[in-house]
Amino acid sequence: MMNMRTIEKTQVTALTKKYQADIQHKIDQKTKPVGSLGQLENVALQLAVIQSHKQGELVSTIKVSKPTAVVFAGDHGIAEEGVSIAPSCVTRQMVQNFLAGGAAINCFCETNQIDFKVVDAGIIEPLTDKEITNPDAFINMRLGAGTKNIALEPAMTSEQVNLGLLNGEKVVTPLIHNGTNVIILGEMGIGNTSSATAILAKLTHSNVKDCVGVGTGISTEQLHKKTRLIEQAVNRCKSQEPIEVLQELGGFEIVQMTGAIIAAASAGITILVDGFIVSVAALAACKIQPNVGDFLIFSHESQEFGHQLLLNHLNAKPLLNLGLRLGEGTGAALALPLLKASANFYNKMASFEDAGVTV
Amino acid sequence: MMNMRTIEKTQVTALTKKYQADIQHKIDQKTKPVGSLGQLENVALQLAVIQSHKQGELVSTIKVSKPTAVVFAGDHGIAEEGVSIAPSCVTRQMVQNFLAGGAAINCFCETNQIDFKVVDAGIIEPLTDKEITNPDAFINMRLGAGTKNIALEPAMTSEQVNLGLLNGEKVVTPLIHNGTNVIILGEMGIGNTSSATAILAKLTHSNVKDCVGVGTGISTEQLHKKTRLIEQAVNRCKSQEPIEVLQELGGFEIVQMTGAIIAAASAGITILVDGFIVSVAALAACKIQPNVGDFLIFSHESQEFGHQLLLNHLNAKPLLNLGLRLGEGTGAALALPLLKASANFYNKMASFEDAGVTV
Repeated sequence: MMNMRTIEKTQVTALTKKYQADIQHKIDQKTKPVGSLGQLENVALQLAVIQSHKQGELVSTIKVSKPTAVVFAGDHGIAEEGVSIAPSCVTRQMVQNFLAGGAAINCFCETNQIDFKVVDAGIIEPLTDKEITNPDAFINMRLGAGTKNIALEPAMTSEQVNLGLLNGEKVVTPLIHNGTNVIILGEMGIGNTSSATAILAKLTHSNVKDCVGVGTGISTEQLHKKTRLIEQAVNRCKSQEPIEVLQELGGFEIVQMTGAIIAAASAGITILVDGFIVSVAALAACKIQPNVGDFLIFSHESQEFGHQLLLNHLNAKPLLNLGLRLGEGTGAALALPLLKASANFYNKMASFEDAGVTV
Repeated sequence: MMNMRTIEKTQVTALTKKYQADIQHKIDQKTKPVGSLGQLENVALQLAVIQSHKQGELVSTIKVSKPTAVVFAGDHGIAEEGVSIAPSCVTRQMVQNFLAGGAAINCFCETNQIDFKVVDAGIIEPLTDKEITNPDAFINMRLGAGTKNIALEPAMTSEQVNLGLLNGEKVVTPLIHNGTNVIILGEMGIGNTSSATAILAKLTHSNVKDCVGVGTGISTEQLHKKTRLIEQAVNRCKSQEPIEVLQELGGFEIVQMTGAIIAAASAGITILVDGFIVSVAALAACKIQPNVGDFLIFSHESQEFGHQLLLNHLNAKPLLNLGLRLGEGTGAALALPLLKASANFYNKMASFEDAGVTV
């Protein structure tokens, strides 16, 4: 394993600023008061800058091509402590639900015409062949049968974390080659708010109490216990180095999403970030490769308590605030039409001159 | 005119509550923690209640059928005072832009598959036949060549206001008969934030200073002038009776939207309310027929200062907050996919029992 390539070798170049003024001018000439489309103007600008950067020339139109949601599923040793409303077996059951098309993310992907994949990043018990009812949508990238309990020991080995980061790259690269230029990452993993909270606290030097929340809905008593266990995990982890933090505190799905985000940014495509857990993966990706931030659009503000702190840390203003706390990529899938709308006004809206409107 | 029917005869019955518990139970049995889809669960509940009410039985699926955006355009006498960033001729130019498909609302309707109509509710100079480049999208419901200057005299006659309310009904009724069950109203009218602000202040007994804003972007000096003129208008209007308030302070497009909203609610369909101006029409509609409120979904919080006060008055929590301040129905058009997503999860998402997921 010593000679294995690591994700740190994947270069993410900073976006060139040279097209920005022309793009802003085009937006400002549209038949509307300057700035009156609010955040949609920022989205149009960012998409046009990203796509011009990739093309190496100013693009005349923004494209949202084959948007794809990839849900990474993994189990967490800490779940055995009872830090979640549901037992670990629900992770596996939900993977089957994703394959059957019955989950919220499936419904939102259908509504908004988003392709869908689910990755077994390391659930406790793998699906049998018979249980993989939709093989086209399934990707096997198992790093193990769930992580270790982070309150007591490192979540995974250094081999696992490095492999996991590269697995994320392996998942998104074929999609990008196939034409996807906006990628949505989602996650499923009973116990994963504990892991994400620990990573957030460590990477931002924050108190666990300022980062921890009720996940999908635990009691106050469970929240106290969860807080104590996360503090124990954070104190146990001595490193601030992001890959070591992921190894110590991460979930398999979080590690793979981190790798996927770095790979997508490296390929010059847009990452539409979901809620709390995915934002933590985005944070880790930015710590590993600071230029990643240029390629991120934050879709929504989760109800999970630590998300606001994290968004502030990343200086991110998400598009939606709908009181969601489900994960699976649902917030990002719901925000995708706003990207399409931003692209469409950029591409097709008349300028004052075109329309003969008095400035 | 004395024998003319008035909009007050249009009955809006309160939504029956009898299906609500069954609908909520169905939502709570979906494979997600209870409440974790936040505002989308409220939207699904409201749509299912409205559609069950109309059907007279619990509907098994929610439909979003032929959603249509109707933009009402009208001019305002007060615009001659210079209370806006643009001259009145821009209203007419934008109507032509709507017909040519070049405005923001056209782009968003295309993105989100929404049918589009524009109504001449009373712009200063009507379009010539040759200028009506897309007759299928154009509806002529002129009440006059712009309103009078509300700072000095009533905006319109009592005949005009009553006719305008019925015109709104005339616009939406054929659409509803043709299958539209979600309607978006939008507006265009240089000077119409002044009219809307005056109506808002009068109908909610608020100070003009707490309601007035910069519209699409006037200077501080213009804002002071605008405030004084609106105060003058509000003081001139002695009535609190909503139809008289509309007559005194209204715009032709605001009056017609008020009639359209009452008619849509009376027909039992959902109204997806846009920003500040349309919300003022919704407020007037609720004052005329209090049950209208049951049929309204508020799409977004506008940047216009008075909108928050108005939303609070109506106890409304809008879906989006994207910093928009354009009008035209753009916020509502952007929110439509959230209604479709709400319908789709209600219709297709698996229950815990279906999916064999441990509760």
